[in-house]
Amino acid sequence: MSVSHLQHSGFSSLTPLVQPRSVAVVGASSDPHRIGGRPIAYMLRNGFSGRILPVNPNRTEIQGLPAYASVDALPEAPDVAIIAVPAPQVLETVQALGRKGARSAIVFSSGFSEVGEEGVAMQDAIVEAARAANMRLLGPNALGVFNANLGYYAFFSTSLERGIPLAGRVGIATQSGAYGAHLLGLSRQRGLGTPICVATGNEADVTLGDAIGWLVESPEIDVVMAYAESIRNVDSFLAALEAAHRAGKPVILHKVGRSELGGRAAMSHTASLAGDDKVLDAVLADYAVVRARTTEELVDIAYLATQRIYPVNNSLGMITVSGGAGIIVSDAAEDVGLPMPPMPEAAQARLKQRLHYASPLNPVDCTAQALNDLSLVHDFTESMVVDGGYRSLIAFFTQAGTAASIGPRLAEQFARIKVDHPDRLFVVSVMGEGEELAPYQKAGFALFEDPTRAVRAIQAMGQLGEAFARPLRRIPVPGGVELPASTPGEAEAKQLLARAGIESAPERVLKSAAEAAAFAEQIGFPVVLKIASADILHKSEIGGVLLNVNSAQAVREGYELLLQRAAEHAPSARLDGVLVARQLQGGVECFMGIQRDPQFGPVAVFGLGGIFVEVLKDVVFRRCPFGVDEAEQMIRSIKGAPLLLGARGRPVTDIKALSRVLAQLSQFAAEAGPRLRSVDLNPVFAMPEGQGAWAADAVLEVEEVAHGAES
Amino acid sequence: MSVSHLQHSGFSSLTPLVQPRSVAVVGASSDPHRIGGRPIAYMLRNGFSGRILPVNPNRTEIQGLPAYASVDALPEAPDVAIIAVPAPQVLETVQALGRKGARSAIVFSSGFSEVGEEGVAMQDAIVEAARAANMRLLGPNALGVFNANLGYYAFFSTSLERGIPLAGRVGIATQSGAYGAHLLGLSRQRGLGTPICVATGNEADVTLGDAIGWLVESPEIDVVMAYAESIRNVDSFLAALEAAHRAGKPVILHKVGRSELGGRAAMSHTASLAGDDKVLDAVLADYAVVRARTTEELVDIAYLATQRIYPVNNSLGMITVSGGAGIIVSDAAEDVGLPMPPMPEAAQARLKQRLHYASPLNPVDCTAQALNDLSLVHDFTESMVVDGGYRSLIAFFTQAGTAASIGPRLAEQFARIKVDHPDRLFVVSVMGEGEELAPYQKAGFALFEDPTRAVRAIQAMGQLGEAFARPLRRIPVPGGVELPASTPGEAEAKQLLARAGIESAPERVLKSAAEAAAFAEQIGFPVVLKIASADILHKSEIGGVLLNVNSAQAVREGYELLLQRAAEHAPSARLDGVLVARQLQGGVECFMGIQRDPQFGPVAVFGLGGIFVEVLKDVVFRRCPFGVDEAEQMIRSIKGAPLLLGARGRPVTDIKALSRVLAQLSQFAAEAGPRLRSVDLNPVFAMPEGQGAWAADAVLEVEEVAHGAES
Repeated sequence: MSVSHLQHSGFSSLTPLVQPRSVAVVGASSDPHRIGGRPIAYMLRNGFSGRILPVNPNRTEIQGLPAYASVDALPEAPDVAIIAVPAPQVLETVQALGRKGARSAIVFSSGFSEVGEEGVAMQDAIVEAARAANMRLLGPNALGVFNANLGYYAFFSTSLERGIPLAGRVGIATQSGAYGAHLLGLSRQRGLGTPICVATGNEADVTLGDAIGWLVESPEIDVVMAYAESIRNVDSFLAALEAAHRAGKPVILHKVGRSELGGRAAMSHTASLAGDDKVLDAVLADYAVVRARTTEELVDIAYLATQRIYPVNNSLGMITVSGGAGIIVSDAAEDVGLPMPPMPEAAQARLKQRLHYASPLNPVDCTAQALNDLSLVHDFTESMVVDGGYRSLIAFFTQAGTAASIGPRLAEQFARIKVDHPDRLFVVSVMGEGEELAPYQKAGFALFEDPTRAVRAIQAMGQLGEAFARPLRRIPVPGGVELPASTPGEAEAKQLLARAGIESAPERVLKSAAEAAAFAEQIGFPVVLKIASADILHKSEIGGVLLNVNSAQAVREGYELLLQRAAEHAPSARLDGVLVARQLQGGVECFMGIQRDPQFGPVAVFGLGGIFVEVLKDVVFRRCPFGVDEAEQMIRSIKGAPLLLGARGRPVTDIKALSRVLAQLSQFAAEAGPRLRSVDLNPVFAMPEGQGAWAADAVLEVEEVAHGAES
Repeated sequence: MSVSHLQHSGFSSLTPLVQPRSVAVVGASSDPHRIGGRPIAYMLRNGFSGRILPVNPNRTEIQGLPAYASVDALPEAPDVAIIAVPAPQVLETVQALGRKGARSAIVFSSGFSEVGEEGVAMQDAIVEAARAANMRLLGPNALGVFNANLGYYAFFSTSLERGIPLAGRVGIATQSGAYGAHLLGLSRQRGLGTPICVATGNEADVTLGDAIGWLVESPEIDVVMAYAESIRNVDSFLAALEAAHRAGKPVILHKVGRSELGGRAAMSHTASLAGDDKVLDAVLADYAVVRARTTEELVDIAYLATQRIYPVNNSLGMITVSGGAGIIVSDAAEDVGLPMPPMPEAAQARLKQRLHYASPLNPVDCTAQALNDLSLVHDFTESMVVDGGYRSLIAFFTQAGTAASIGPRLAEQFARIKVDHPDRLFVVSVMGEGEELAPYQKAGFALFEDPTRAVRAIQAMGQLGEAFARPLRRIPVPGGVELPASTPGEAEAKQLLARAGIESAPERVLKSAAEAAAFAEQIGFPVVLKIASADILHKSEIGGVLLNVNSAQAVREGYELLLQRAAEHAPSARLDGVLVARQLQGGVECFMGIQRDPQFGPVAVFGLGGIFVEVLKDVVFRRCPFGVDEAEQMIRSIKGAPLLLGARGRPVTDIKALSRVLAQLSQFAAEAGPRLRSVDLNPVFAMPEGQGAWAADAVLEVEEVAHGAES
C-alpha cells in the first residue's frame, strides 16, 4: 500500500495578505467611519509599518495620504488591495489589480454567493480573474484581516474602536466576521492577546484551512482559535491540521451547527447514523485539535494553551482553602474524564502532621489556617508535585488569594514551585481585579476565577498532549482492492471481504432445495437461510431470511418459501439461489459499517446490533483506516461495551478478533477508493474468547462503472 | 388515604438570628481584624440599626462601645449572641445566654463535630443547652449571617473587606462559609444584589432548610441561591421547598458531590441503581427548584430569576446581528431542550420584505444593516413577540449594542417592547462595561455577555414556570396497605400487589408435578415454571426458572428438575412448591422497582428490562407517590422509550396500562410505610396496545416485625 501525507501548495501564498508591505485601498474614503475609510484610519492611528495607497477617482488626498485615481495609476504593485466598492464593480477592480501585479485582494463588498444565484456567478467570475492573475483573494463579504504586530488593519469592524487587540501569540481564523469581532472583544476582556485575525467570509478562494495553516506556520503565533460553520475545503483544512501537528501548535476549534445532524437520504444503516458532525469529530480525533462547545470554552482553552504545556497522562491535583470548591472541582473533573488520583498515603500522613486540620487526600484542603503560614502552602503544593506526581494543578484561593496582605506573598510561594517544576500545568484560581492579579500574572500563571472552567481547559491540554505525542496517521492512497463493476450480491461481497481478512461463517449459495439440505447437513444445524440476490438489499424486510432452521426437511421447505416470497415482493429481482449458513450461537451481535463521507472519505462505524444501533444510536465513528489498537479503543468506548466484556455473567467475547475485523474493514474501505459507497456487516458475531468474530451478513454498495468502461 | 402537607414548626423562629434588634458579641475584640472584632467593625461601619453589646471580661470599652464583663452582666436579653470564644468555653456561654433569655446564638468557634468524636459530644451538649433554653443556634463552625438591609454583619469573612453586598432581592443559604464568601464575590461582580446570607456550618440546630425557608418567607427576598454538600435535615429542607412554592419564589440549588454516587450495599436491583444524587433529583422534580451544575450557572440563573418572569410553555426567539451567534444559540437550546420554533411563514415574508438581507426564520438575523434604521429592530422584535409568540427572547448585539452611537437608541427600542409585553422574558446580549450598559440596566433588562449562558438560564425559568403552575403534591400518610410480618414469597407478594391493582399473568403455586401439568394445560402453553420459596430471592441465579415449557410432559419434568436444583443450591430453603404461569409473549420486558431512601422515603424506578437496566442504567426515578400522567412522563423519558412506542416495526405497547401499573406501584409504596424496604417487578411485560401490562415476577422485601410484636 502506498502512503503519503497530504501535499498542499503551501500556506505561504497568504503572506502578502496577512503580512503585507503595501496596502492599496480601492474605494478609499476620507470618512474614517465608512467602510472604505476605516482601515486607513486604523492603520494610520496604529502606525502601519508599510505603505498605504488609497484609490479614489475623485480625490487627490485621503486622510492625509496621496490618493490615486485608479488601480492603474498606483505607483507600485501592492502586496494586498482592499476592495470596498459596490459588488458590480468588484470584477473589473480585480482584473485591474491583476494587470497591475497585485499579489492579493480582500473583498469587503457583499452581494455575492450569500444572496443567491446571480451573486454566485459574480463570485465565480472574480475568483477566476484572481486565479488567472495568480492573486489570492479573501472574501467576498469578508470582514478582512488584521495583523496588530505590524499595525496592519484591513478590517472594517467597529469593534476595533473599542481598542486594538492585546499583544500576544494567539491567532484567530473565523468564517464569520461578526463572530470574529465578538471573539476579539472577549479575548481582550480575558487578557488574551490575539494580534492576528483572518475572517474568511464567503471563501471564494482563501478558506478557513488556509488561514489556520498560515497562522500555525507563523513564528509569531503559538495557538490558533478557529470558528467554523462548515468545512468548505477539506484538503486545506486537513493540511492545516497536519501543519499544526508538525509545528506542535494546537488548534482550538468552535465548529457550530452541532444540532443540524445529517439529514441525508439514507439507504444503509450507517448513513442514517453518521451526521456530518459526528464524522467531523471522528476526523478531528486524529489531530491536535480541541473542539470547544461554547465561545467561553474556546477562549478559556486558548488562554490556557498559551502556557504551552501539554501534559501526557494528565492528572489533576487541587490545593484549596475551601472543601466545597474541592467537591465542585471533583465533580467537574469526573464529568470530563480527568483523573484526580489521591495523594500517596505516606505523603498524606506527613501533611496531616504539619497541619492537623488539613484534609490531604486530593483535593488537598489546607483550610484557611494555612494562610497564617504561607510556607505551608508551598510545602503542600510541592508535595503534590513531587509525591502526588500530578501533571496539572489548580490552587483555589478565591478572595484570600488577592487580599493585599496575602496575595503577593502567596504568588511568591507558588512561583517557586513553577520555577522548580516548569513542566507542570499550574492554574491559580483567585478572585480580583487589576493590580490584585499582577503578582500572579508576572509569575506567568494561568488565572481562572471559576475553577470548574479551568477543569475543562486542563482536560483539553491533556488531550492535546496525547495528540502531539501520537505520530500523524498515514492515509493510504486507494489501491489494492478491486471492486466489482456494480453492487455485488451477498456471497460475492463476502468473498471480497474474505480476501481482506474478514471471514464469514461457513456458507454457500445453492441452486436447489436438495443441495441446500445436503449442505446444511454437512455444516450442522441450526442454519440460516437467506434469499441470494444482488437486487434485494435488505432481505429481512421482504421476509427473505429464515433463522433457526433445524432439519433437512425444514431447509427444503424454507428454500421454497424464500423463492415464493422473492417472487411476490421483488418479482423483477435476479435470483442466485438461497444462501445456507451455519447459524452462530452464543455470540454477541454487533454491527460494523462503512459510510463514504463526501468530504472526508470512508468513515467506519461500530456498535452492538439490533436496538443498540437502531434505537439507542450507541455507536462510535472513526475515519478509515485505523489499526487494531484504535479499533479496540472504539469498541471499548461504546456504552454497551460491558456486554462484550462479560457483564452480568455473560461470556467474555473475543474482543481481539473483533478489533481485527474492524481494523481490516477500515483498511479495506481505505484501499477500495471512492467507488465504495458503503458496507454494512450486520450482524457480526463476537464469539466467546478464542472463537473469533464472524460477519453473518454483508451488504456492500459500489458505484456502478459507466457502461463500457470495463474492458 | 389521609394526606397532609409537611407541617413545620415555622421558619419565623430564625428571625432573631437574621433580623435582630440587638447583638451581643461574646469574645468581643478591640482589633477589627480578629474574629471577635470583625463583626463589630463591620456593623459600626455600615450603621447597624440595632444595639451592639460587646462582652469581654478584660475591657470596659470595645471599638468605642461599652463592653460588659460577662453574659450575666448584659443590660438586656439580646436577640442574637455571636460566640467567638474557644470551643471548650462555648457550652458555658450558651448556658449563660440561655439564663439571660437570649433568643438565638451564632457559634463561630470550630473544633466540634468536624474534628471527630470528642467534638461531636461537645456539639451535642451545646445544642441541648440551646434547646433547653428555647434558643435557635447557628453553627458551630459557622461563618455566620449578614443582613445588609439592616447593616447587620454577624459574619467574620474577610471578603466583606472587599465591599459589602449590593442592594437587591437575592438571599444566600450555604453550608460552606468559604464557598459562601466566594459566591458573594461573584455576585458583586455580576451586579447581583445579595443582601441576606446565612452560612450554616455544622448545622447542629439551624439547617440549610431553615435558612432557605426563612429567606423565601421574607418580603425582602425574591430568589434564593443555596449551596449544599448534603441534606442533613430532610423535613426542614422539604418544608422550605414547599414554602418557596407557596410564595412563588424559586430556589436555585447547587448541590455538589454529584460524582460520589451511592455505594450502598444493595440486595435488590433498585438499590444498586439509585445513587443518592439521582434520588435527590427525583425529589426536586416536584418543587420549584433548579439545580445548577456550576457556580457560574448558579449566579446566572439567580440573576435571571430576579426578573420574576417564569414562563409556562417556554420557547425561545432570538434576534441577532450575527448568523454565527444564531447557530451557537440554536445548538445550546437543543442541548438543554428549549424549543426554538420557526416564525410563522406569513410573518417571515413580511420581515423579508422590510429587509431583503434578513434571515427571518428564528434565529431572526437582521444583519448589521438593521443598525442603520433601529426602528427595523423594534418591528422585527415586536413581530417575534406578537406573531412568533415566543415566551423568551434573546437579542444578540454584542459590541454594536454598546457603541455610543447605537446603544442608548437601541435600548429605547427594546424598552418599548418590554413595556408593551411585560410577560416576556427578554435577555439582551451585549458586550461592554459600566456606563455603556446603563441604558439597558435602567430599562430593567437582564444582560448576558455570552448568549449560550443565557440559554441555560432561560430554560431554567421555563422549568420554574411549569413547577409553579403545578399544584404541590400531597404526600400520603402511610396506611391502607397491610404488609406481612416478614418478606413474603412470590405468590403472596403478587396477591398483595394485586389488591393494589397490579395484576400478574394467570399463575398458581402447585404442590405436585401432576397438578402443575394440569394447571398448565388449563391456562395454555407456553408456561413458565419457577421454584416457589420465600427464602430464595433471585431464583434465576440458582436455575430456578424455566421458560418456554411447551407440554404437560415438559411441565412434569421441569417440576422435578426445579425441586432438585433447589435441594442442591438452597438446601435450607423452605419450599412452597412450583409456580406455574402463562408465559407472556410479544410484549416488551420492563423493569419497575421501589427503593426506600433513608431520607426521602420510597422512590420508584422504571426502565426497560435486561441489559437496559443492568448495563446501560437507562432508568428514571421519582419519589412516590405519583399519578398516571407523571408515570407516563417517566416512561417516555428513558432513552429506550422508542422500543415501547413502535420503533423499527415493533408493535406499539400499552403505555397507558404500563403507566397505570407504575403509578399504582408508587401509591402502594407510599401507603405501605417505612417497613417496605424494596419492590422489584422484573420483568413487567408491556403487551401490545389494549392488552395491558403484567408483572411476571415480584420480589418484595419487608422489614421483619420484631418477634412477638404481632398478636
